[in-house]
Amino acid sequence: MTGMSSDADARPPADTVNRVVTELRERLGERVSTNATVLEQHGHDESGWPVMPPDAVVFAGSRDDVATTVTVCARHRVPMIPYGTGTAVEGHVQALHGGVVIDLSGMDQVVAVNAADMDCTVQAGVTRKQLNRHLRDTGLFFPIDPGADASIGGMTSTRASGTNAVRYGTMAGNVLSLTAVLPDGRVIDTGRRARKSSAGYDLTHLLIGAEGTLGVITDITLRLHGLPEAISSAVCAFPTVRDAVEAASETIQTGVPVARVELLDELQMQAINRYAGLDHPEAPHLFLEFHGSPAGVAEQAETTQAIASEHGGHTFQWATVEEERNRLWQARHDAYPAALQLRPGARPVLTDVCVPVSALADCIADAQRELERLPMPGTILGHVGDGNFHVILLCDPESADDYARAKAFNERLVERALALDGTCTGEHGIGMGKMPFLQAEHGDAVAVMRSIKAALDPHNLMNPGKVFQRA
Amino acid sequence: MTGMSSDADARPPADTVNRVVTELRERLGERVSTNATVLEQHGHDESGWPVMPPDAVVFAGSRDDVATTVTVCARHRVPMIPYGTGTAVEGHVQALHGGVVIDLSGMDQVVAVNAADMDCTVQAGVTRKQLNRHLRDTGLFFPIDPGADASIGGMTSTRASGTNAVRYGTMAGNVLSLTAVLPDGRVIDTGRRARKSSAGYDLTHLLIGAEGTLGVITDITLRLHGLPEAISSAVCAFPTVRDAVEAASETIQTGVPVARVELLDELQMQAINRYAGLDHPEAPHLFLEFHGSPAGVAEQAETTQAIASEHGGHTFQWATVEEERNRLWQARHDAYPAALQLRPGARPVLTDVCVPVSALADCIADAQRELERLPMPGTILGHVGDGNFHVILLCDPESADDYARAKAFNERLVERALALDGTCTGEHGIGMGKMPFLQAEHGDAVAVMRSIKAALDPHNLMNPGKVFQRA
Repeated sequence: MTGMSSDADARPPADTVNRVVTELRERLGERVSTNATVLEQHGHDESGWPVMPPDAVVFAGSRDDVATTVTVCARHRVPMIPYGTGTAVEGHVQALHGGVVIDLSGMDQVVAVNAADMDCTVQAGVTRKQLNRHLRDTGLFFPIDPGADASIGGMTSTRASGTNAVRYGTMAGNVLSLTAVLPDGRVIDTGRRARKSSAGYDLTHLLIGAEGTLGVITDITLRLHGLPEAISSAVCAFPTVRDAVEAASETIQTGVPVARVELLDELQMQAINRYAGLDHPEAPHLFLEFHGSPAGVAEQAETTQAIASEHGGHTFQWATVEEERNRLWQARHDAYPAALQLRPGARPVLTDVCVPVSALADCIADAQRELERLPMPGTILGHVGDGNFHVILLCDPESADDYARAKAFNERLVERALALDGTCTGEHGIGMGKMPFLQAEHGDAVAVMRSIKAALDPHNLMNPGKVFQRA
Repeated sequence: MTGMSSDADARPPADTVNRVVTELRERLGERVSTNATVLEQHGHDESGWPVMPPDAVVFAGSRDDVATTVTVCARHRVPMIPYGTGTAVEGHVQALHGGVVIDLSGMDQVVAVNAADMDCTVQAGVTRKQLNRHLRDTGLFFPIDPGADASIGGMTSTRASGTNAVRYGTMAGNVLSLTAVLPDGRVIDTGRRARKSSAGYDLTHLLIGAEGTLGVITDITLRLHGLPEAISSAVCAFPTVRDAVEAASETIQTGVPVARVELLDELQMQAINRYAGLDHPEAPHLFLEFHGSPAGVAEQAETTQAIASEHGGHTFQWATVEEERNRLWQARHDAYPAALQLRPGARPVLTDVCVPVSALADCIADAQRELERLPMPGTILGHVGDGNFHVILLCDPESADDYARAKAFNERLVERALALDGTCTGEHGIGMGKMPFLQAEHGDAVAVMRSIKAALDPHNLMNPGKVFQRA
């Protein structure tokens, strides 16, 4: 691995920053901010990583604003960090080496909705909830739901997924093409609106999940899906986590096109009951959702209930009417705040391994055994259809020991997931938090990734210090 | 675009070739052939491009054989061309600059089937029919069907799809990870068996569709799908191609998860009737297939029939029993040989544009108007659920004028498809045949593709002269 400069390994000198800010102000005026509060706000995501403020923030209103900013920064070799909603969880937007944050939240236009083709084009700052509000009358929706109301640009950059990836796929399967400003200011389109193409290298997928290290994504063309005619939701308790996971796997193998299938462990259910005054059995649960025709949905629910019963499932509740469905699923949506309330003021540490579904029950059982040895509480929450689960560890923010033990727990869990042919991150991305695991997971392929980074960003200016250890 | 050497732009000198062959024979013995017939066989695919034989063929039996071959060739700067079944159609395997063809057909082992995870790992030479025979008792299948019994490695390298991509996606959505030998002989795995990951750059998708220009794919881990409990097939005639396309689009928009929906124009139906002694109405047709539960499949067929009727659909036939389904679909499977019989001995020229579905009817109507002006017959065959269609033009092999007019027809069709936000190739790939269109389709993105090529294959040794014009 050669050719990656270390120019950006330190913060740029103050006079360079001043020249860049002056030049950007000449071109972009009020869009450029060096206000301390603004810098502070843009120096962190939702992870536990400390705030690392940039030297300036540009509030981009257009692709031209982005290209201008990138061109000026590139000329002066000043780092750039694309920023959407700041809801990443692995230290994705911290300005580790200073430089300019490019805030894309003002690029919030839905550029086109092509209902007949079931696609749309949005600017990077459009959030997923905003997009779905915009689509309300079209009979279409954008299904990817990572929890936070993240921007489509950010979701693309982290290869996000969430609760219904089991049915609708991840961002990798739902982005048709995108427009990006490269590290030298060139603008490229990676594809067209055709639903498939065999023309040349797949730059779309190269930029999906690149976490802003290869360029700034400004526009995204997305696949949309037809709103299901009928939706039904179900909740079911199980004797053990293993029973719940096995019921979920068997349901999927049977061919039931389940739209969501979420695991919540016993402690997570206790947390939810306490948080929302509910009285679910304090046992592991599956939360399920089915999409289809009314007859199809009923058939899916029946098949699933039969499989669940064979695995000891009990207290099966289901709902088809919207308000009842929402009431039933509210418990799942409350899972994160409910977990935080188990230890008010705690600093959460989140894991994100994903393993082949056949290995999931074992992987979770290991995690549970390790959890019992920890001094702090931790709940388990899983997108079990994909083999992906999170442990939410609640650390005392004052306790270095708590944090060290949570970190060690995560390391062991990743090690175990890799041994099971899994990944250190199913949907959160590498950021700064998962960098130590990239080499263990990808081996020599990391050198290839670095060659690509060096070819497209030879001065290491795009979100430096993320994804890869410094060169 | 810099750094791409032109070392491979001419055939390597005879003494270099001799040294390489000698060295390869020392290491691989009988696996190395310079037999003229073998070279001839490996110097062409199924396109009309002339035979361009390599200097030698290595029949690789293992990943080590591939790595050995690549290492030796790389040291001597001799071109390498990966070869599967030779069923590509754009001049993908012709040894334009001589060198060594690496024939992977002997790497034909299904390495693992993980039924519980609905995935499998195969060597690159396994063909899709072989894989489905192997899977017969598992309740699973591999759906991608490009027509030819191509190798999985070749299908991966051309980002192939075919008749049921509308339901199951293309190779891009069905490869979980792969192993490849890079141009310098290094071996990398691009991912693991987890169904999703956000860990680092997506090298899997970078190699899918790279047409052997970035390395030799040796092993592929594929997603599998549950064999549908029930299948039903339908055939329906329409007054016009536009009616048929509109019925297909509306069916998909309504949310019917149609598994296949194929358009055949009037001349293609005439050809089929003549070829197989059938008596379908000589009108545009849709051939459909539905997968699901028995109730689900019946519901899908009913909804589709209702929509078809609204668009003038008539003579709706459908079948659920396997023999009847096969009989009904045989006409579609015979489409290509039937078209060839319209002009025995003709040299076929195939187009492959793909446009947004809403533009498909217009694009086909244009093609039909242009077809009428041509001296040779041409049939239309479309994967209309994806917006992809082929025109099969039957040229007199002795007529340079026929071929020139077919080429001009294709150029106009691509131009029109690009203007409609489509692609020059939906599933065949660029090879040599579509190189003139890559720049028009991708603009500045081609320079980025070239940078990646230069970073990973600085001496332009991997399948040189394909995808890109020479540097």
